[in-house]
Amino acid sequence: MEQVDLLILNASQVCVIPSEHGGPQRGSGLGELGLVENGAVAVKNGRIHHTGPTTDLQTRYTAVQTIDANGRAVIPGFVDPHTHLPWFGDRAHEFEMRLAGASYMEIMAAGGGIMNTVRQARQASIDDLVADNLPRLQRMLAHGTTSTEAKTGYGLDTATEIKLLDAMLALHAVQPVEITPTFLPAHAVPAEYQGRTNEYVDLVINDMLPAGAEWMTQHHIQLFFDVFCEAGVFDVPQTRRMMETAVTLGYRLKIHADEFEGLGGTKLAVELGAVSADHLVKTPDADIAALGQGQTIAVGLPGTPFGLGHQEYTPAKKILAGGGALALATDLNPGTCWCESMQMVIALACRYMGLTQAQALAAATLNAAHAIGRGHEIGSLEPGKQADILILDTPDYRQLGYRFGTNLVNTVIKKGKVTINNE
Amino acid sequence: MEQVDLLILNASQVCVIPSEHGGPQRGSGLGELGLVENGAVAVKNGRIHHTGPTTDLQTRYTAVQTIDANGRAVIPGFVDPHTHLPWFGDRAHEFEMRLAGASYMEIMAAGGGIMNTVRQARQASIDDLVADNLPRLQRMLAHGTTSTEAKTGYGLDTATEIKLLDAMLALHAVQPVEITPTFLPAHAVPAEYQGRTNEYVDLVINDMLPAGAEWMTQHHIQLFFDVFCEAGVFDVPQTRRMMETAVTLGYRLKIHADEFEGLGGTKLAVELGAVSADHLVKTPDADIAALGQGQTIAVGLPGTPFGLGHQEYTPAKKILAGGGALALATDLNPGTCWCESMQMVIALACRYMGLTQAQALAAATLNAAHAIGRGHEIGSLEPGKQADILILDTPDYRQLGYRFGTNLVNTVIKKGKVTINNE
Repeated sequence: MEQVDLLILNASQVCVIPSEHGGPQRGSGLGELGLVENGAVAVKNGRIHHTGPTTDLQTRYTAVQTIDANGRAVIPGFVDPHTHLPWFGDRAHEFEMRLAGASYMEIMAAGGGIMNTVRQARQASIDDLVADNLPRLQRMLAHGTTSTEAKTGYGLDTATEIKLLDAMLALHAVQPVEITPTFLPAHAVPAEYQGRTNEYVDLVINDMLPAGAEWMTQHHIQLFFDVFCEAGVFDVPQTRRMMETAVTLGYRLKIHADEFEGLGGTKLAVELGAVSADHLVKTPDADIAALGQGQTIAVGLPGTPFGLGHQEYTPAKKILAGGGALALATDLNPGTCWCESMQMVIALACRYMGLTQAQALAAATLNAAHAIGRGHEIGSLEPGKQADILILDTPDYRQLGYRFGTNLVNTVIKKGKVTINNE
Repeated sequence: MEQVDLLILNASQVCVIPSEHGGPQRGSGLGELGLVENGAVAVKNGRIHHTGPTTDLQTRYTAVQTIDANGRAVIPGFVDPHTHLPWFGDRAHEFEMRLAGASYMEIMAAGGGIMNTVRQARQASIDDLVADNLPRLQRMLAHGTTSTEAKTGYGLDTATEIKLLDAMLALHAVQPVEITPTFLPAHAVPAEYQGRTNEYVDLVINDMLPAGAEWMTQHHIQLFFDVFCEAGVFDVPQTRRMMETAVTLGYRLKIHADEFEGLGGTKLAVELGAVSADHLVKTPDADIAALGQGQTIAVGLPGTPFGLGHQEYTPAKKILAGGGALALATDLNPGTCWCESMQMVIALACRYMGLTQAQALAAATLNAAHAIGRGHEIGSLEPGKQADILILDTPDYRQLGYRFGTNLVNTVIKKGKVTINNE
């Protein structure tokens, strides 16, 4: 008998979620779970060693630690490929103003909106940022998110944008959720550049992007560069200017596109080979077709229309019909969507994007990992991948999405170690 | 110094949620929180003894147990006035069929729909029902629900309907959430009476209602009687016949009205003095006006349109403008809304019913207690009421609704005893 570190036995189902030709699941292929009934998982050196029937694995392996899943379902840890961690403070009061009928302009006039969060981020120390964001990461982990993306974008000046990257490193070091950092100085035009968007774009290109590049060299971490390409924020030519510079400096690309208007950001993302294009609520059909031809992954963020009380969501079925690869993310942020739970995102995606539970699950794991460039490492239970594993509180993965508003994760295993037991 | 049993000190806010003339908060009065900053709560003999500023209460009382709320907000326990507990089994597979495009009729033809749950309930023993529903009640409690209503309605024959009442008693006895029982044999027309609705109504009147009345006498518990008054189920004359009989047998009344069509059920409920009228999505304006004149409480169930992926919700603003009293509930059930969390309901009500966080909070506590006839006993932190108290995980009650998909309850106190500590 071979010795392994961890053996999970007697899972009602093990959802492996196999890669498609080593990549994400695309188009009609989305939702292939590689489901093993009465399954087991063997973990060695923090990696998936073997998945298969319990009857098979229990005769092959002995283990330092054995977990009896006792008829519960086992799935990969969720990957959240789009969040606005870290931020400081909250905007519950603005939400109240909005519910009481205040317009966006009235909220802005009262000091609200994104600049509210920017002011707070600029004043916060790294210790402040760690203290404020640690509970959010703990909540994500408790709900099954084992790896996440995080963005700057509440600094909007060079020093604060770099401080936010440093805060991500500090947060990465003090808790188990792995953080993939994205540099988003072009999240908004800061108040001091109001009406001078091109000058701010110049600042991003001439000062911020080089500062981020220096940070990459110093820390040996490749950053994503992201732009909020939207009517009234950064248009397509401005976005292109920043992105082309970013590529020459060694960044990988992401984009916020078509959240409120279909400007052409998705098509630009495909053209520039961006790893992901996110939001895509108002994406024109031609740009959806482009997704099917390129490698850019569409990331649906259904928590945001929900958070805003809107009724229009990412047209997932069209994206899949066009052969695109679709992932899901929370968009966790203090303005439009304070939700740490990928389970909530799955519930929304089933109802308002028309995904089955299996499709939503693959979009929230394997494809989400590809959307942050880590699909070779995390996002499924294929042998060799990092052992990020969830044991659900239910025998049937299909209770994800069907049930909503609560946490169906029983046990969270990160790199082969049990880190959360919700029992 | 007076001795009390429990003292909660240093709450950022204590939301007392005062009654309006001893009753629910009506119309524009909804959302009065009686907020005490830097507040404290003294509990004696399982009841609220005193709420006020920490500086005041800490000089007046010594306590057997003191909890430092440490800057967190304190609110009353949630009351969930509409659930379909207890049931047996789940319908995740039907949800999947629906997402994959199956019609309601196709799902019914495959053995799905309410009769699926009815078959399972008929076969289940009381022990089965307790084992299956206990985790749901525990989940409710962990999310802050300290009292709930529960309905029969998955029996649809006399013996099973009575068995479901017995299961409620058994569940009430083994965990802390108090259960207020409702008798709902007119939840649907069972398969064996298909096409013979009037004969089933006769069975309800001649056999089921007397059996429930006998159960009331035996257990010294007054039941609510409830009818699913809806197009294709029970019409208004059938509903009236059953309800008038129920009143003569000593039941109090509730009704499922206007979920899919505005049939007149709400008006009937007001006319008959029903304690609550629930769903009210398609309620005609004239019936909304009637709510403002009567004592019947409108119960909004936003989890159900959400669960179904619909986009139309209870017109809360109209109900309040008409002077009505509004409560919120989960509608927890295995078909359309498996959600144990009143916090999720608040998040939906803020976004899709247009309530502020304060209005939603009062609707989920004080008014919800009145919707099950227990407003004199629970639902607020007024002196003399049962000490059902939540300490939130946040300093600001306005984070309820603003944040969604996770659990913001830190500590649950039931009848003065700490029963859940989520830390």
